[in-house]
Amino acid sequence: MSGLLQRAVVLARRPEGIPQAEHFSIVTRPVTPLAPGQVRVRNRYWSVEPAMRGWVNAAANYSTPVGIGEVMRSFAAGHIVESRHPDWPVGTAVTGLFGWQELATVDPAVIDTRVDDTDLPLSASLGVLGINGITAHYGLLKIGEPRAGDTVLVSTGAGSVGSAVGQIAKLHGCRTIAITGGEAKRALCVQRFGYDHAIDYQQKDFAAALASACEGGIDIYFDNTSGAISDAVIPQLKLGARVIICGTASVAQWDPPPLGPRVERHLLVKRARMQGFVILDHKDHYPTARADLARWVREGLIRYEEDILDGIEQAPDAIAGLYRGENLGKRLIRVG
Amino acid sequence: MSGLLQRAVVLARRPEGIPQAEHFSIVTRPVTPLAPGQVRVRNRYWSVEPAMRGWVNAAANYSTPVGIGEVMRSFAAGHIVESRHPDWPVGTAVTGLFGWQELATVDPAVIDTRVDDTDLPLSASLGVLGINGITAHYGLLKIGEPRAGDTVLVSTGAGSVGSAVGQIAKLHGCRTIAITGGEAKRALCVQRFGYDHAIDYQQKDFAAALASACEGGIDIYFDNTSGAISDAVIPQLKLGARVIICGTASVAQWDPPPLGPRVERHLLVKRARMQGFVILDHKDHYPTARADLARWVREGLIRYEEDILDGIEQAPDAIAGLYRGENLGKRLIRVG
Repeated sequence: MSGLLQRAVVLARRPEGIPQAEHFSIVTRPVTPLAPGQVRVRNRYWSVEPAMRGWVNAAANYSTPVGIGEVMRSFAAGHIVESRHPDWPVGTAVTGLFGWQELATVDPAVIDTRVDDTDLPLSASLGVLGINGITAHYGLLKIGEPRAGDTVLVSTGAGSVGSAVGQIAKLHGCRTIAITGGEAKRALCVQRFGYDHAIDYQQKDFAAALASACEGGIDIYFDNTSGAISDAVIPQLKLGARVIICGTASVAQWDPPPLGPRVERHLLVKRARMQGFVILDHKDHYPTARADLARWVREGLIRYEEDILDGIEQAPDAIAGLYRGENLGKRLIRVG
Repeated sequence: MSGLLQRAVVLARRPEGIPQAEHFSIVTRPVTPLAPGQVRVRNRYWSVEPAMRGWVNAAANYSTPVGIGEVMRSFAAGHIVESRHPDWPVGTAVTGLFGWQELATVDPAVIDTRVDDTDLPLSASLGVLGINGITAHYGLLKIGEPRAGDTVLVSTGAGSVGSAVGQIAKLHGCRTIAITGGEAKRALCVQRFGYDHAIDYQQKDFAAALASACEGGIDIYFDNTSGAISDAVIPQLKLGARVIICGTASVAQWDPPPLGPRVERHLLVKRARMQGFVILDHKDHYPTARADLARWVREGLIRYEEDILDGIEQAPDAIAGLYRGENLGKRLIRVG
């Protein structure tokens, strides 16, 4: 396949805050030759997620920023179409950090998952069976340590991580409450994801509605937003509460950090814990999480939604669209 | 002893923020009759600690506020002088929440410790061997989980809790840094409590001095202050850092909470944890902690300072004095 050309989406300019369409370019480039031990993956789906904002910002972050002119970093799912590694035959379905490009030429170490459960859609390997579902599984079960009867609150409750958190919590006997934006997502939370309550953070009396839905207090707050939503949540924490910091989607700029009500006194008085995590640190947890999630999906115990955009041209604006809240379900770009 | 009178310090008015002398009255009252099963303790020392501010404020807190006209809640150490309980003979040295009164008539359930290590001063049972040392022991070892080589930062590093934290961390092979106020306390930290560095938070270039002393980052932050000190510390957290929320001495008013830079992004990016605790929840840990602390004090591995005020008349202003930073060492009031 050497001499072949492929299309890719590269970072053209460094954004401050949320990356917009103008920060990316679509380019045509030669495909890298395949070295011994490497495989070539034809990407079928690219993932789009809130964390990608952090990957392109210059501020110190949990990974090195994508360089200008480099292919945009992203999770992707595809099939091996060429192989110089005996353990990775042509035809194998895989996921990994393959980037926003049609063909990824990689060492097998870059592969996150060999997708064996081919009875389930490949796209699900990027959402409920992939990084989003695994994030929910690890964050809720390992950091949140839910007990039956706990009240679990999820910000971005309708999102691809949040909806999995809510359903996994329900499977563990918890009472679940979603915070989400707009009536469509609110209905989705209750009707499809089985939350006991769902609250629209855009409603006028949000804090009062939250306090009423969380009567008795919150044992676990799975936080994907930070910001004003968290400010309304923190005073409702119960003794011994766990706050799982998974994302900060509602805050556009962290350099310098915006001001908010101090949390120390609440954490002290409530003997509460607030803990951040990045799922990429926990690859040893992926197989367990994926096995649980695949079983729950097959048994109909966990449902998921996808928002699939068609074609490379959709990519540059796709992250900005997430932050505009325009998707219902896990956002993917179908490219092959 | 019925018919006897005793003196006590009662809450006269409810303070907002830090209680001042004017919020207390010294009264003379009849001693409560001794019921079957009870003991009478003659207090020798009353404890004075920052947490007492929270015990008299009306805001929701970790214990019911002291009522107007009630004896001020406090830890105290003394001897049983009258007993109607066979397990608690006259002459036994004990500590507990006996309050700011000369004689406490209590059920034995109120006793925290039967002081058996009579080779050590009774006053130490209220400081390094008591609630302060135990707080340091539990918070650092159980929540902080120090490992040899960790950098441990302690706000109020010269205080009765902080000085124990620093020394226990040192015994566990950590590098220790104190934040404290003024040159006298700074010298005490380095010369007596063995910190590797001590930084005066009142110095002009505090944040820069902190960053330089903590080069390489902070693994454990034992936080007794909150406020501007913490704002300088949080950006220096290392991957996997633990922040132990033990007190909030630098913030006078929490209703509503003052604003500060949001911490969520730091916790996320650094995979860090922030956790509050109240030592009164962990009475099962007291014997272990006390045995360790008594051994370390006997072996000269842990040093402590006391600031003993003489007489009941000193009590009303004693908490305010703590917040003015006028004591060097654990503040106590000698009353018998």
